[in-house]
Amino acid sequence: MKTFLECIPCFMKQALNAGRIATSDEDLIKEILNRVGEEIRDIPLDNTPPETGGLIYKIVSDVTGIQDPYQEIKEKNIAHALEVYPKYLEQVENINNPKDRIELALRIAAAGNVIDLGVEREFDLKRDIDDAINCDFKIWDFNLFYDKLSSAQNLLYIGDNSGEAVFDMILIKQLKTQVIFATRGIPVLNDVTLKEAKEIGLNKYAEIISSGVRAPGAIIKSTNEEFREVFNHADIVIAKGQGNYEALSNEDREIFFLLKAKCPVIAKDAGVEVEDFIFEKIN
Amino acid sequence: MKTFLECIPCFMKQALNAGRIATSDEDLIKEILNRVGEEIRDIPLDNTPPETGGLIYKIVSDVTGIQDPYQEIKEKNIAHALEVYPKYLEQVENINNPKDRIELALRIAAAGNVIDLGVEREFDLKRDIDDAINCDFKIWDFNLFYDKLSSAQNLLYIGDNSGEAVFDMILIKQLKTQVIFATRGIPVLNDVTLKEAKEIGLNKYAEIISSGVRAPGAIIKSTNEEFREVFNHADIVIAKGQGNYEALSNEDREIFFLLKAKCPVIAKDAGVEVEDFIFEKIN
Repeated sequence: MKTFLECIPCFMKQALNAGRIATSDEDLIKEILNRVGEEIRDIPLDNTPPETGGLIYKIVSDVTGIQDPYQEIKEKNIAHALEVYPKYLEQVENINNPKDRIELALRIAAAGNVIDLGVEREFDLKRDIDDAINCDFKIWDFNLFYDKLSSAQNLLYIGDNSGEAVFDMILIKQLKTQVIFATRGIPVLNDVTLKEAKEIGLNKYAEIISSGVRAPGAIIKSTNEEFREVFNHADIVIAKGQGNYEALSNEDREIFFLLKAKCPVIAKDAGVEVEDFIFEKIN
Repeated sequence: MKTFLECIPCFMKQALNAGRIATSDEDLIKEILNRVGEEIRDIPLDNTPPETGGLIYKIVSDVTGIQDPYQEIKEKNIAHALEVYPKYLEQVENINNPKDRIELALRIAAAGNVIDLGVEREFDLKRDIDDAINCDFKIWDFNLFYDKLSSAQNLLYIGDNSGEAVFDMILIKQLKTQVIFATRGIPVLNDVTLKEAKEIGLNKYAEIISSGVRAPGAIIKSTNEEFREVFNHADIVIAKGQGNYEALSNEDREIFFLLKAKCPVIAKDAGVEVEDFIFEKIN
């Protein structure tokens, strides 16, 4: 997805939010906003938004000297997710029909995407998950996915935020094919890195690799060779969350996007409304 | 009111909104955002927000070559306000008790402040006015105002947006004291200038002067001598709207602020909630 003019005030808001999380020093936060402001001229609108996102989080780290401002938030989100994990895992594994089991696990994984909002507003995780389990997805390519799954040798699962990865694990555990779970290359926003993926225990059910990207979305030209090799040859690719949608929606290969649309620009690009869930095959 | 860090993403959003109203050329709007971005470093947080607002609307005019992008919107707002004007004027003038009459007129003038939202969202003028007439103002210094009014020789009324001025006229018409109505110095946002004030017919009930300011708020150091003379010596000053609150809330003289708080930063500064109406005496 390209950058829209509407993204630019939002970049400034993201910089402010991240600055506030990294420090309480107003002068440092102002310096972050100054630098992001100065970069606007150099943001081409045909860049994807996560490319600018990466720049913003680098500025936050450079100015504050804090490499992982969201560390505490991530730990809290993970702990919160792990609390409810056994209940949802049990609910999934009590289902005998494999298709129904995968479907429920996939809905739970989508619901995990609400954690992205944790910083901005209060949320009730259990309620949000139960809502997502029961809601109508605006785009629902589940049958296409399930058909492919039976013959797939491997599946690349591109993670999004850290707490969400706990719910991804419920789905990944049900898949009979080899799963490669890709994380961000460095801490950026509350996104999952190798560190959190291992901490959660995802390595029990998937091979974990770093995409190498230093941005909140798997921008292919910024990924490392290992990731690109998997991306190009995987039988199935699932990309979680808005950042990966922004980074990958114009790529040529078939990708299943699983996310809740929280931003009006992304919702419009996907042809849905804000708050809608989608599981959409592109290409 | 000083500039808060939260104002900075909002400046960018205002620049985008004004750019979209001035032109449909995406490159020109991007250029507006580039220039506003480059100015951020030079915005001291102890400036009032309208000082930066003035800069933003100047950039919009410089880049697009359009001096009054809101002209059409102002005309529409005025026409819309004039349609309902006779009904509300009659309602006010049917009241025999002078205090009750002034109170209702003041509530209607406050309600006119919702027109500020006209650009951003749909609004039903009549419904909003009726809501304001009947609502509880969060701050309501009406008795202090009414007491002063009996002995006041003159009153400075600092206007805000153009459509709103139609409702200000209902109040001004009821005041037995001499009223000087001050406008912005140039077209900025949808704010009232000499042109619209005369067009509405405000000159029948008040002396109209330009404040000289080139910003969406009466920043004293930017006003002309004529305005300052009146401001310093008027028995009563009423300042309408958020922009004038931002510009004047730290001034030394007694001012009655009449507005609806639409921005969270202003609401917080005034100690109220977003959506609250206030009629507040400061000093």
